[in-house]
Amino acid sequence: MNKDEMIQFYKEYEEKLSAYQTALETIAFDQATIAPKAGEDARNQASAMLHGELFSHMTNEHAMKVMDDLTKEDIEPILLKSIQQRLRSIRDIRILPKEVYVDYERTSSKTQSMWEKAKKANDYKLYEPYLIKLIEKKKNLLTYRKESLSDYEKLLDDFEEGMSIEKYEVFFQEIKTKLIPFIKEIQTKGKAIDTTPLEVLFPINKQTEFMKVLQSYMNYDSNYCYMGVSMHPFTTKLCDNDLRITTAYHEHALTSSIFSTIHEYGHALYSLQVDRKYAGSILMDNMSMGMQESQSRMLENCIGRTKAYWINNYKPLQNLFPEQLSNISFDDFIKMINASKPSLIRTEADELTYPLHILIRYEIEKAIFNDNINCEHLDELWADKYEEYLGVRPLNDAEGILQDIHWSVGEFGYFPTYALGSGFAAQFFKQMKQDIDVDDLLANNNFSAISEWLKENIHQYGSYLNANEILTKVTGHDFDPSIYTDYLINKYKEIYHI
Amino acid sequence: MNKDEMIQFYKEYEEKLSAYQTALETIAFDQATIAPKAGEDARNQASAMLHGELFSHMTNEHAMKVMDDLTKEDIEPILLKSIQQRLRSIRDIRILPKEVYVDYERTSSKTQSMWEKAKKANDYKLYEPYLIKLIEKKKNLLTYRKESLSDYEKLLDDFEEGMSIEKYEVFFQEIKTKLIPFIKEIQTKGKAIDTTPLEVLFPINKQTEFMKVLQSYMNYDSNYCYMGVSMHPFTTKLCDNDLRITTAYHEHALTSSIFSTIHEYGHALYSLQVDRKYAGSILMDNMSMGMQESQSRMLENCIGRTKAYWINNYKPLQNLFPEQLSNISFDDFIKMINASKPSLIRTEADELTYPLHILIRYEIEKAIFNDNINCEHLDELWADKYEEYLGVRPLNDAEGILQDIHWSVGEFGYFPTYALGSGFAAQFFKQMKQDIDVDDLLANNNFSAISEWLKENIHQYGSYLNANEILTKVTGHDFDPSIYTDYLINKYKEIYHI
Repeated sequence: MNKDEMIQFYKEYEEKLSAYQTALETIAFDQATIAPKAGEDARNQASAMLHGELFSHMTNEHAMKVMDDLTKEDIEPILLKSIQQRLRSIRDIRILPKEVYVDYERTSSKTQSMWEKAKKANDYKLYEPYLIKLIEKKKNLLTYRKESLSDYEKLLDDFEEGMSIEKYEVFFQEIKTKLIPFIKEIQTKGKAIDTTPLEVLFPINKQTEFMKVLQSYMNYDSNYCYMGVSMHPFTTKLCDNDLRITTAYHEHALTSSIFSTIHEYGHALYSLQVDRKYAGSILMDNMSMGMQESQSRMLENCIGRTKAYWINNYKPLQNLFPEQLSNISFDDFIKMINASKPSLIRTEADELTYPLHILIRYEIEKAIFNDNINCEHLDELWADKYEEYLGVRPLNDAEGILQDIHWSVGEFGYFPTYALGSGFAAQFFKQMKQDIDVDDLLANNNFSAISEWLKENIHQYGSYLNANEILTKVTGHDFDPSIYTDYLINKYKEIYHI
Repeated sequence: MNKDEMIQFYKEYEEKLSAYQTALETIAFDQATIAPKAGEDARNQASAMLHGELFSHMTNEHAMKVMDDLTKEDIEPILLKSIQQRLRSIRDIRILPKEVYVDYERTSSKTQSMWEKAKKANDYKLYEPYLIKLIEKKKNLLTYRKESLSDYEKLLDDFEEGMSIEKYEVFFQEIKTKLIPFIKEIQTKGKAIDTTPLEVLFPINKQTEFMKVLQSYMNYDSNYCYMGVSMHPFTTKLCDNDLRITTAYHEHALTSSIFSTIHEYGHALYSLQVDRKYAGSILMDNMSMGMQESQSRMLENCIGRTKAYWINNYKPLQNLFPEQLSNISFDDFIKMINASKPSLIRTEADELTYPLHILIRYEIEKAIFNDNINCEHLDELWADKYEEYLGVRPLNDAEGILQDIHWSVGEFGYFPTYALGSGFAAQFFKQMKQDIDVDDLLANNNFSAISEWLKENIHQYGSYLNANEILTKVTGHDFDPSIYTDYLINKYKEIYHI
């Protein structure tokens, strides 16, 4: 094959992978939102089969050779970068002997189902031996990777390219030394905020109506985006120009559907605003986990929880729920949606205490993979750290080490990107406030100017630039964790008057 | 490969095909119901790619050889029949030289898009040369088939195995000689039924609520079935135990969503009640078009338009629409939902005039393929037949020959199965009434006894038995078209008091 033929071959390869992804994401979205329960087994079987087909195409020997060859040719930068990222996405798989890979997948799948059982039974001991076995196998996989990185660094790199462990250390030290004492200070000196008025009955049909208010405020375009309902909110791209977000409604938690919608819309907007010049390539979708979370969390927290965001949205909310909200002042509402209180469940944590949940997971992962600690009694290590950092101790496994699925499917190194996203968000947000009058725009129903800023400064690049390249381009410097802690401390000093 | 290995191979082949079908049906259902418009191109591209993949797997040389070999082995009857039906489904493709097949597919795809354009422009002449070309190519395809059948018989056989042209001739003669004069008699002697009270404003949210009444009456189980909304109602099976039906709501046509729901539920129920012993094989799904339509039309017309069906359902309907319906008596309502009037559009035709729409298409198709008529001016032939048989003449192409998509995608021989379905339905229904007290069961909210009869007598067999085998098993004799015309004439004599 000459260069042009190889390029043509590569484009068809990407088209094929993307067709399988469309199929798998469509089936998964359907399953999570509307699919009748009785079809689950057959649907899972079909998905597994198609995953296998996708995997075979993705790791096709000939395709990998063509890509390797192309990276040595003189090709244009977008094409080169998209090939490099595709190769990176299969790099770990290529180097593994097939039997090692299959054995690992089997272990992981078994561990996940044991985690489900153990969580239901609220009994970590059922799952512990499987988790320990999975960690061993994961360590074994890492021996095939020859980069001069420690085990945990390899894992971190999988989810956030270019974030070295030194940078993570600085980040988590910043969280640990600044936020832990600050949170304790709020607990002792701040006046507790009563959020129970937002936990009375809020009928779901009215909540659904309010989502339309928010969608309209944020210029949600139903030609490009569809919103469904699922047990856990998520965002998925089905194909070009087709983003799906979901929310979950809870009768006794008004803010749950609201902030999950704003959060997921942040993800969707990111995908929708990538420059079309990357169409047909992995660069449209391959944004890092930290970058993805930065966009959802910035919208949810830095923007969605401000007075300016609510100045025109609180009245419609009150109108929909006159009995529940007419006696709650605007200022009190803003306080309630920003209340902070140490708790046990990560996904329910507020903006301020959230990074401590991640700190705990980061320290445990690092201990497992870099310090090779004995992995028995991780549940106790978990509980001790919650008690030490957050002042709360899980009374059972379900609200402790069993709460998250990630480790059971071998996703070690993933959690840190959640906190990183908030860190990136704070740095982007500081710059945004310098560039445009965010509060004024939000208060004047000009959300499109916010979207535009995000598109110009961040979204357009897709994964053509990585997190640090974008941060530097937009803010003039590398990731700086102190901006994040400053943001949180300043914000919460005002909320709690300390 | 020994026999067991071949069987194992064949089972995996079926599993793979079924995974692709799940993917394609899921994407199609999503697209027809909720998918954001902007994603259409990308989604179509993904679908086309997956269709290609499915096609390659389906016509894989090795798989076809294994199936051929297995049919010569001593294997159990279910397995044998499922292999025979799979081979039959690809029989036409296997015998074609690839370039002939590809050329035909290209022509068909072009013809379809020209049909869309012509329909929008209301101009048959734009499309005519493409249709003529497609007919030529179709005739050419048929030359590769060596059965001793006329061209049109080959086409008819594609959609309804075992229905010879002699049987079709008897069927359509029956329709022609009995129904045409009878319909004219109604027009002249019968008192016209005013249906305008069902065409005032019926808000869609209330119509949606009424669907729940019908669902509950028919024991619709949401663990197995999901109902969506689409422009044209349809039923699709996404995978085992997962049926989807859709309806379309029209503010000024109350009965449209009602009868399309009953119709589509008839299809769904058929799929859901096939015996699980056929699971994993084509026998679960490969029921003939005539059989499929017999189940939807029996439910919609023979059952859904009776007094007994409505005796407990009309009150809830009136309660939802008191302004619109409180002055309409039960008897008048029953008359209105059974009113008959010659019209131009097949899909909007009533139960009595419907078969004449099919008769016209049958005669034209037969003239094209068996009499080799000159295919210029098919639009005029169409209009002449409408005028002769139904007494109405299309004033433009959109309400004439351009109304249906079928011919533009090469589906000649398909239309007759629609009328056949009604014919089968009448024969099954006559037997059902002899076996169980249908009216009594319907009037006493015992729909499950109807479902049970359908399951025991018809649904359980899937495609293990063909239409005539089932008809004979259930009613003691072959298909008898006079039962159908008797049913219609008796029914409409009562409605129109003639």
